[in-house]
Amino acid sequence: MSEAKGDFGLIGLAVMGQNLILNAADHGFTVVAYNRTVSKVDHFLENEAKGKSIIGAHSIEDLCSKLKRPRRIMLLVKAGNPVDQFIDQLLPYLEKDDIIIDGGNSHFPDTNRRYDELKKKGILFVGSGVSGGEEGARYGPSLMPGGAKEAWPHIKDIFQSISAKADNEPCCDWVGDAGAGHYVKMVHNGIEYGDMQLICEAYDLMKRVGGLTDKEISDVFADWNTGVLDSFLIEITRDILAYNDTDGTPIVEKILDTAGQKGTGKWTAINALDLGMPVTLIGEAVFARCLSALKSERERASEILNGPEIEKISTAERPQFIENLKQALYASKIISYAQGFMLIREAAKEYGWELNFPSIALMWRGGCIIRSVFLGEITSAYRQNPDLENLLFHSFFQDAIHKAQSGWRKTVATAVGSGIPTPAFSTALSFYDGYRSKKLPANLLQAQRDYFGAHTFQILPEFADENRKVGDYIHVNWTGKGGNVSASTYDA
Amino acid sequence: MSEAKGDFGLIGLAVMGQNLILNAADHGFTVVAYNRTVSKVDHFLENEAKGKSIIGAHSIEDLCSKLKRPRRIMLLVKAGNPVDQFIDQLLPYLEKDDIIIDGGNSHFPDTNRRYDELKKKGILFVGSGVSGGEEGARYGPSLMPGGAKEAWPHIKDIFQSISAKADNEPCCDWVGDAGAGHYVKMVHNGIEYGDMQLICEAYDLMKRVGGLTDKEISDVFADWNTGVLDSFLIEITRDILAYNDTDGTPIVEKILDTAGQKGTGKWTAINALDLGMPVTLIGEAVFARCLSALKSERERASEILNGPEIEKISTAERPQFIENLKQALYASKIISYAQGFMLIREAAKEYGWELNFPSIALMWRGGCIIRSVFLGEITSAYRQNPDLENLLFHSFFQDAIHKAQSGWRKTVATAVGSGIPTPAFSTALSFYDGYRSKKLPANLLQAQRDYFGAHTFQILPEFADENRKVGDYIHVNWTGKGGNVSASTYDA
Repeated sequence: MSEAKGDFGLIGLAVMGQNLILNAADHGFTVVAYNRTVSKVDHFLENEAKGKSIIGAHSIEDLCSKLKRPRRIMLLVKAGNPVDQFIDQLLPYLEKDDIIIDGGNSHFPDTNRRYDELKKKGILFVGSGVSGGEEGARYGPSLMPGGAKEAWPHIKDIFQSISAKADNEPCCDWVGDAGAGHYVKMVHNGIEYGDMQLICEAYDLMKRVGGLTDKEISDVFADWNTGVLDSFLIEITRDILAYNDTDGTPIVEKILDTAGQKGTGKWTAINALDLGMPVTLIGEAVFARCLSALKSERERASEILNGPEIEKISTAERPQFIENLKQALYASKIISYAQGFMLIREAAKEYGWELNFPSIALMWRGGCIIRSVFLGEITSAYRQNPDLENLLFHSFFQDAIHKAQSGWRKTVATAVGSGIPTPAFSTALSFYDGYRSKKLPANLLQAQRDYFGAHTFQILPEFADENRKVGDYIHVNWTGKGGNVSASTYDA
Repeated sequence: MSEAKGDFGLIGLAVMGQNLILNAADHGFTVVAYNRTVSKVDHFLENEAKGKSIIGAHSIEDLCSKLKRPRRIMLLVKAGNPVDQFIDQLLPYLEKDDIIIDGGNSHFPDTNRRYDELKKKGILFVGSGVSGGEEGARYGPSLMPGGAKEAWPHIKDIFQSISAKADNEPCCDWVGDAGAGHYVKMVHNGIEYGDMQLICEAYDLMKRVGGLTDKEISDVFADWNTGVLDSFLIEITRDILAYNDTDGTPIVEKILDTAGQKGTGKWTAINALDLGMPVTLIGEAVFARCLSALKSERERASEILNGPEIEKISTAERPQFIENLKQALYASKIISYAQGFMLIREAAKEYGWELNFPSIALMWRGGCIIRSVFLGEITSAYRQNPDLENLLFHSFFQDAIHKAQSGWRKTVATAVGSGIPTPAFSTALSFYDGYRSKKLPANLLQAQRDYFGAHTFQILPEFADENRKVGDYIHVNWTGKGGNVSASTYDA
């Protein structure tokens, strides 16, 4: 057996895996590549990997024998069973303190489970979010590792070398315990769903109410990409809308308007419901995809359900209309990120993770799909105050949303009056108005629950007295009939 | 051993259980009552049950020995472990084809599991939704039984006797296989969350924008309760708002405005996400409760986040304002029920249940919390066409929503301009406008996904040709760089 010289092993030679290997090799690491279909290893070695510090492995045993200790092995395979299967295959060849990194889109409860199981076996398990697509993997992804903290000193150098950089800092840092890395990646993807939906609503309004051509809309996104909205998704939207098919017309208008949603966006919305956090914008973004998928039903509905006549914006009004739209997009985006960080904060509490908020924002600042200038502002805000209760409590975002709200409200009013759906703009605004409401109408709701189900309520502090103390569970005999028994087991 | 003469056994003597027993006794059935804390049985027998056809049991064995065959035993105990524990305790004393009915708020996957397990043992398991609170249990609840269909002929008479009646028909019919009864009850509760949130939004607007007193708002609800909105929840809202505390002021204004949400509403929203159905109104209603629970954070936010000055409605404008609000509530309610039935339709497909839509609407027509005149219209619509694709495709609801939409749009615009949160009104309107959109902007979203992740898209039929056929998965090399490889495993 020759002396092990591999710094890093990688299993799974789909395009993401190949690109990550090439990226690591470019940064001076010797990478050992393995794939279940072994012919793929040879093909990769003879082509893309040729002349680089990349070694092929023809079996799991071969892979493990070629790696320096502690072994650092990353899985880039399909989430679910394949991850467990490869872990099982690796175990016989690993030694104490070797490191397995799952770089796929695993659901964080699976990562929690694997972390626990492998801990018992002395193996350090890391679940790492990887974002940025093929391009990111090749030239600098955003990496969000979490799990066994003892692994971090051994992988930090590789991870921070291959990751994207933003403002000269790596978009990779240690996230937290157990499944925290995959959790943060999940929320990233949820926010990505939100950002994409917001852009779609802006496009739809410009097209259907503004009467702009795709080229003109592309120009608007190009302009927006130079300011506070500067981001990867705005940039590619600019390019997509300017991309013409061979017949000279925008290809985007030929694409079927149905989107899938069976992934991480859905997980984020479900987790928000489980943790009781009002992450409404991601929820609406997921549901908007669901609605888009009902294409044939919508087609039939469009024939029989009517709406208002759309009054097209005149050329003279156009600049103001677009400015309002920009403010709506910006304000809604602030709300979405505020909600996302509220969820992460609650998860840290619920799951007992110590999370580093400035680092999370920085990891998303570059490399990943939601990368933006905006995330630089979030990073600054959390660096100034890592215990910041809510993004909206920071002066930068407070000022931004105060300035944006007039255009935001006008945009939503225009959509409502024109019959154009803006579920994400609208829910963001409802959230903002609810969040800044000292008093919401849930007092009536609690009265209803007490009326029909004897669920009890509490008293507002300003009305508390000897008989009704703050925190007491109070029942009122609303009807004058029935007992004063409060329900304990039923919610019927 | 004396001859068994009990028609029906009931375990669990909390208020719901006691009332259901008294109800069954009133209808001529001999009921055997049992409770884990046996003293409660004796107390019940000596008091509420005295002189009625109610027999006490002091053990599970005693209970089973006193019941005619096939035994019909209903559990009204806390959902979760207690149900499994009582089933385990019952099994040794049961014989083939005996019937266990779970009348608690069990989550339908649990009911599916119990149905399967008991089927193997020859026991007929029924999971039944029970709604209507204490009052309903005593004088006529809505009952939604599902599970082992062979049980239905044996329990139909009891169930339909004790259930509520609407338009002379029992609000109880067989729902479907396995967990279908509890599933339909879950959606009922989700819709209840939605109805309550809609009423809260109307109240909030009348108070904060309309400047109405609680008494005046009560009068509005009293008026609404005489028309298309006639329903239990509107009726109790009328009464709650008119209910004064000992100091002569409305007690509702003293109630803490925070609501819980850890129940069936959340399950409904999660199920909607799992099945990919855009049940946005229930989702927003659950999130609105979550937001209400962040009371202290909202208080701090209210000090620093500003909104528009509220322009109070003048007395002259008030009637129109209230009429618009009524239309907003009515239209939103139509959307919520349309969404709820979309979800049930999808669940029937997904879980392989044959569901009877007119019966479901009829079960909700009376007895339960969401009972209303409106559900009579839904019953008629499904009776006319049991395969109705969507409530909005029926002329009654189509006409109703067409007539309501102007007031609905004005109400949402007023809320948006005044800074009052109306998440449920708004999401309902966005859904309506999205549902009747032949084309949604998801084409851009699909282009984005293909751009950054090579996720591919499909072509609109009208642009299909030899090279791009309908249903083909198409990838465009948007940047001119990179490969034409489409992603198979990643969603990064």
